[in-house]
Amino acid sequence: MTTQAFLTALSSELPSLTIKTDADSTAHWGRDWTVHFAVDCTAVLFPKTTEEVATIVRLANEYGTALVPSGGRTGLSAGAVAAFGEVVVSFDKMNQIGTFYEADRMVEVEAGVVTKALQEFAESKDLYYAVDFASSGSSQIGGNIGTNAGGIKVIRYGMTRNQILGLTVVTGKGDILELNGGMLKNATGYDFRHLFIGAEGTLGFVTKALIKLEKQPVNLTAMVLGVPDFNSVVGLLDKFGKALNLTAFEFFDHIAVTKVIEAGHTKAPFESETPFYVLLEFEALNDEVLELAMSVFETCAEEGLIVDGVMSQSVGQLHELWKLRESISETISVFTPYKNDVSVLISHLGDFISDIETIVKDNYPDFEICWFGHIGDGNLHLNILKPANLTKDEFFEKCQTVNQYVFDTVKKYKGSISAEHGVGMTKKPYLTYTRTPAEIDYMKAVKAIFDPNNIINPGKIFD
Amino acid sequence: MTTQAFLTALSSELPSLTIKTDADSTAHWGRDWTVHFAVDCTAVLFPKTTEEVATIVRLANEYGTALVPSGGRTGLSAGAVAAFGEVVVSFDKMNQIGTFYEADRMVEVEAGVVTKALQEFAESKDLYYAVDFASSGSSQIGGNIGTNAGGIKVIRYGMTRNQILGLTVVTGKGDILELNGGMLKNATGYDFRHLFIGAEGTLGFVTKALIKLEKQPVNLTAMVLGVPDFNSVVGLLDKFGKALNLTAFEFFDHIAVTKVIEAGHTKAPFESETPFYVLLEFEALNDEVLELAMSVFETCAEEGLIVDGVMSQSVGQLHELWKLRESISETISVFTPYKNDVSVLISHLGDFISDIETIVKDNYPDFEICWFGHIGDGNLHLNILKPANLTKDEFFEKCQTVNQYVFDTVKKYKGSISAEHGVGMTKKPYLTYTRTPAEIDYMKAVKAIFDPNNIINPGKIFD
Repeated sequence: MTTQAFLTALSSELPSLTIKTDADSTAHWGRDWTVHFAVDCTAVLFPKTTEEVATIVRLANEYGTALVPSGGRTGLSAGAVAAFGEVVVSFDKMNQIGTFYEADRMVEVEAGVVTKALQEFAESKDLYYAVDFASSGSSQIGGNIGTNAGGIKVIRYGMTRNQILGLTVVTGKGDILELNGGMLKNATGYDFRHLFIGAEGTLGFVTKALIKLEKQPVNLTAMVLGVPDFNSVVGLLDKFGKALNLTAFEFFDHIAVTKVIEAGHTKAPFESETPFYVLLEFEALNDEVLELAMSVFETCAEEGLIVDGVMSQSVGQLHELWKLRESISETISVFTPYKNDVSVLISHLGDFISDIETIVKDNYPDFEICWFGHIGDGNLHLNILKPANLTKDEFFEKCQTVNQYVFDTVKKYKGSISAEHGVGMTKKPYLTYTRTPAEIDYMKAVKAIFDPNNIINPGKIFD
Repeated sequence: MTTQAFLTALSSELPSLTIKTDADSTAHWGRDWTVHFAVDCTAVLFPKTTEEVATIVRLANEYGTALVPSGGRTGLSAGAVAAFGEVVVSFDKMNQIGTFYEADRMVEVEAGVVTKALQEFAESKDLYYAVDFASSGSSQIGGNIGTNAGGIKVIRYGMTRNQILGLTVVTGKGDILELNGGMLKNATGYDFRHLFIGAEGTLGFVTKALIKLEKQPVNLTAMVLGVPDFNSVVGLLDKFGKALNLTAFEFFDHIAVTKVIEAGHTKAPFESETPFYVLLEFEALNDEVLELAMSVFETCAEEGLIVDGVMSQSVGQLHELWKLRESISETISVFTPYKNDVSVLISHLGDFISDIETIVKDNYPDFEICWFGHIGDGNLHLNILKPANLTKDEFFEKCQTVNQYVFDTVKKYKGSISAEHGVGMTKKPYLTYTRTPAEIDYMKAVKAIFDPNNIINPGKIFD
């Protein structure tokens, strides 16, 4: 039975369903932000309701057609790439913000709602949607749920998982499940909600979610601190973390700052140049909190943890300081970076960074490493910049070797080969560096329960 | 193959394992706080390591022996009752607090560590273990994880689930899995940690956990407010919730307060008598926060949401005010209450309470209802007090009918028949009021993967 037969049956059952098969559409919706896989997408479907999704899944089971879920396509692990002739199910037309439960500070959204739209909705209710990251202008809630997206506010508000009070899903078998119904407390058996969160769409489609909104943070204030070495970064996390309710604790290195300033995104935060920088943010509820922050700053400066620093005095300055961190990805993209997204315990970060620096220096002395990341969460973004004298192909070939070293080092420290980008196809070959064969066997068995015909996003996470 | 053969094989493989079969021990360790089920426990095992637990499970599979996990035995749903000749696996001898990861604010504990011991350990590190409830002096971490225990601080810190950064489990198949390794961010496939949390020990044994500790709260301050009606309770949650970072928001009714004061646990908080009371708690970081709290109080009083109120001025007064809430369970226990633990959306609480009041008044006009609970989490504890003229048996028979009404009403509002006490055996017959047949089928299939021979806690949650 061919995919064509599936599409014909679908048109017959759902005459109003938009189906695109033109080359532009399949090329566009067949991929996410990853570029390493050739796209081979047969068609793109645009359902408008959960019931339509269920019909699509039922027919896909009948015709043996593989489906790939597609949100904002900002993924970095090829979790939403159709590379084997699959049919893509786009959630672009399921983008309604539904019932707002004021007393519960909760809102129901369809999977295709863009992160930023939810942030703005929350703001309109004097509330706050706490998940935020570089691609929030394009990423969709369904995709965020699929990868359990993190970002810059995790230290205070947790991952996407933390905000999900209910999920409507269509399993690979075609069952519609309404999981957890928005309750904060519900001790009635296995919490499948958390199984679907982070499953990268391999168990079924998330079609709706009930999202918890937070109290708006008050008078967010940032400090950028120049730091003499990486251990001081961790030391500052401890000191400021104990004194303040941090909403972010980011770090980046001198190379990152230099490139961002050279690119004209912002100016240097202060005159001193230091190997590492910390950007921390907190709610300055009132003057006493500001004084406390200043007193921690002074103590840390006396102890040599801080070389120089600056604190935002206005919302404008807050945004200016954040540019130092938020412009890094875009700035270094011109250096064709080899990117990695890993995490280890905060306790192991110093040794981990030092190991990687040594390995790269020993093997590729002409490679420049740019570090940044969410230190408060143990999450490092490792970026190796392409030296001008290497072609892209030569560089990426050498990077494959680096990859091996990086993942060996992640394994040494019992860390994660993917902190917040997911596994998809990009990291599938390395899954055993973080998960054991027994765990992967259980994953496959669970997949077989929810998706017995291997219809939904096959070949993602594991084969 | 008999249980006796299993015990013989076990003694041979693990000669140092403590095995108790005397009547006192099997009666003691064979039950939790529930009293509705006759205990039939064949033996009690006291492993000391994860490997010993794995050996027990392997042999149990070979001999077809059913095992029941046992922690602090404070459960209220018979999740840890051996009623069918099972062998109990007690975690009393796995009570070590292990490595403390200072930079990660994380500690590894064995499953048998008592909640209070972990709270005290955290305090010794100037940190805070945020899960707290009436039985924290006896309950063990493993049991808390099994039921995803909640308690009085959920509004700020979330359920037990929220603090678990890693789990070591022995599955029903006998595999030892180390899940998530303590990381805040780890996007490498299905997060089985969350499947085991709240599974009431039906998928395997939790033997260790990596627990996140929190910053110690500063200057906790409580208000007790007398409130004219239930809608005002919800109104206050909104007003105070928007202004302050609440650490608790509890409510109880006039009957509860009257009984607690009559029993001599504490004195009336103020002269006015009101139908409902709110106890809220927040961090009074400094005088400005206290002033803010007072100004919200005044606004609410002007709007008629508050009739009278009092705020703690010292730690001693804080504890005294908490007695109003914390003494309720013990106080009403002499009235042989019929207890229920349900949750609905906060948006539905008012209608839900009103429906139940009407049903009980119409059907059993002589029944007295005592309400209290964690309103900030939508979690109500419904207690019907036995009228003096009814025998215990007559009363509980009538309560079975009430049960039906209560669960019908829970279903009407799409709530949970067990907010934080679990399903165990007590609520098993009512599981379909909150979970659909499709969900229960998936649960059974997942159980069959992790525990194919139905060895671990069979007959709990579902048959």
